[in-house]
Amino acid sequence: MSDVSLRASLSGERLRVDYLLTGDEGEARGKADDICLEQTVEFPGDLVPPGAIRELVVGRVEAFGPAGGGRFRATISFAVETTAFDLVQLLNVLFGNISIKPGIRLEALALPPSFLARLPGPRHGRSGLRALLAVPTRPLVCTALKPMGLDAPELADLAHRCALGGIDLIKDDHGLTDQPFCPFEERVARCAEAVARANARTGRACRYMANVTGPADQVLALAHRAKALGAGALLLAPSLVGFDTLRALAADETLGLPIMAHPAFGGSLVTSAENGIAHGVLYGQLMRLCGADLTVYPNYGGRFSFTREECVEIARATAAPLGALRESFPAPGGGMTSDRVADMRAVYGREFAFLVGGGLHRRSADLVSNARHFVDLLEAM
Amino acid sequence: MSDVSLRASLSGERLRVDYLLTGDEGEARGKADDICLEQTVEFPGDLVPPGAIRELVVGRVEAFGPAGGGRFRATISFAVETTAFDLVQLLNVLFGNISIKPGIRLEALALPPSFLARLPGPRHGRSGLRALLAVPTRPLVCTALKPMGLDAPELADLAHRCALGGIDLIKDDHGLTDQPFCPFEERVARCAEAVARANARTGRACRYMANVTGPADQVLALAHRAKALGAGALLLAPSLVGFDTLRALAADETLGLPIMAHPAFGGSLVTSAENGIAHGVLYGQLMRLCGADLTVYPNYGGRFSFTREECVEIARATAAPLGALRESFPAPGGGMTSDRVADMRAVYGREFAFLVGGGLHRRSADLVSNARHFVDLLEAM
Repeated sequence: MSDVSLRASLSGERLRVDYLLTGDEGEARGKADDICLEQTVEFPGDLVPPGAIRELVVGRVEAFGPAGGGRFRATISFAVETTAFDLVQLLNVLFGNISIKPGIRLEALALPPSFLARLPGPRHGRSGLRALLAVPTRPLVCTALKPMGLDAPELADLAHRCALGGIDLIKDDHGLTDQPFCPFEERVARCAEAVARANARTGRACRYMANVTGPADQVLALAHRAKALGAGALLLAPSLVGFDTLRALAADETLGLPIMAHPAFGGSLVTSAENGIAHGVLYGQLMRLCGADLTVYPNYGGRFSFTREECVEIARATAAPLGALRESFPAPGGGMTSDRVADMRAVYGREFAFLVGGGLHRRSADLVSNARHFVDLLEAM
Repeated sequence: MSDVSLRASLSGERLRVDYLLTGDEGEARGKADDICLEQTVEFPGDLVPPGAIRELVVGRVEAFGPAGGGRFRATISFAVETTAFDLVQLLNVLFGNISIKPGIRLEALALPPSFLARLPGPRHGRSGLRALLAVPTRPLVCTALKPMGLDAPELADLAHRCALGGIDLIKDDHGLTDQPFCPFEERVARCAEAVARANARTGRACRYMANVTGPADQVLALAHRAKALGAGALLLAPSLVGFDTLRALAADETLGLPIMAHPAFGGSLVTSAENGIAHGVLYGQLMRLCGADLTVYPNYGGRFSFTREECVEIARATAAPLGALRESFPAPGGGMTSDRVADMRAVYGREFAFLVGGGLHRRSADLVSNARHFVDLLEAM
């Protein structure tokens, strides 16, 4: 390619990425320069051809300085064309090879308009989901059908009682897939029917959310089958099936169901402070880019270890300006009980989905009353 | 479900997983007990129904003891039926929610015959690939087409010269997808043709390997299109598109091409010693289960930070007994130069694929001669 043609194929639009780098100033600067090469040409710097490849295709350090805590922050820009305007290759440019290099953490990401315009994002978003569920202002209340080992009629009975109690979204536990003791087809059919029957009594618009996390070549078919069986929403764990599978589900015009993203298998991206991807970018921004209407993550103070600040960061990212993309709902969960509600109000306001699992069963043997208790608590906020 | 029916649906076969747990003995024991719940019923222990769910569905600590370095090792077994005999749900049982909990590292995995029988593994494996490439005994020699920014004719010219020089497998750099300056269709067609033309001169059986890492709903179509355009092998980054996408490609009877797994975006699973998945399990065992004929990882001593021991562990796992699954080739790369060859022989014997990228271009301006140099070096082993 002539240098002229390559230059002509590059718009000049660039994504800007902040990385936190561990090490002394020399090491951190070396890491920044390395990221520029490793994430694009993957070629020794001195062998990179001069001209447009070196000037425009290789990443560029736009800013570099101390970030506190003995670390450094580098802002690196990449030509948007390196991403092929595709989410998978975007992830590769952002954190492909360097995911294997210690001491590099992706902290912030700003995408140019030409990239954002290609991703529709959440199909329903906050306001769309509120309309579907007929919950205009209070936080949404979600629960999960569990424990694994119950059969489809038993799970459907739980779903029925949760829906009678006023829960808005009732999801499969994310570990329920197509086990011999609880097959997908029977579970989805029975749970969807049980929720519809409860809605007929309550006049409410509760939705059953089917887990469609499954074999790569079956996810889309599972989603369509779930819809045909009456499911009103979908659950997917993007780290298990690929982030772009979420994008593909959200983009499917004939499907059109709200989607909740579950964090299973992706936690290694956040468990180390020195590596991986910042909480807000991963659970907030990236899941929203993929099209999640709701993004699940472990709330502070539950049985996981996220801090309050990390959760605030996630919630902010679900609503921060992001092209024309709709806002998504943060869905903090993981050991939530009723005494968490007041503080969650302080953190999240009313714009979140309260995800209660085991805690719903602890209060009493009357699941309908337990469900109502949580809905009332959140209604009172 | 009656307790009797649930018991009847469980074969008694269990997978056994070793986890390394950080903390003092009490904390580590707590983590082991927590894994048993978190990875199955995801329910508070005291609320789990007695009977078969508590006895058989919840994971079971089979062994627990000190592992050195202030850590503890727990062997935990899970009923094979919890995996639904599906690779995605297997990953979820192994490391779904607990990926988000610090101080848990998956160190070893033993799968029961009923699970292994469902996964075909590598379609060609070591001996099949040696036959396809007509390389009976020496290590394979692979290179990557780069740097990004070259156009399709330029990459095809590189491919042609590498093939003339005797390289066995010539892959797209994993960042080459469908960029405007180098579209997939033109690149694959030209590179495949260039390699075929070289084979016609040399009488060799070099294969061009097309990168089909792309949008979730296009990977399979890209793979078939690559084959139709003449590609002789496929490159896929499972952490970018989902591990099971690799399984689906390998299982596709009408495709039948050798597949190389690339580690991009998955490195957070190994960068911390206290979290994630052991190198041998991730790059060796799991990639082989998914069906990779070759598994790429950064070699020790290159521009990444894996140790010699970690690389030995990976190589061992590519050939360790694993049901009826074929052996795969370890493909260490990442900054390999000719002075690495002797030590690699000591570590890998002849059963590896030497992956040279930038190093191939450094030796001289004559790429054919450079390629021949590396092939001769490995031939002499």
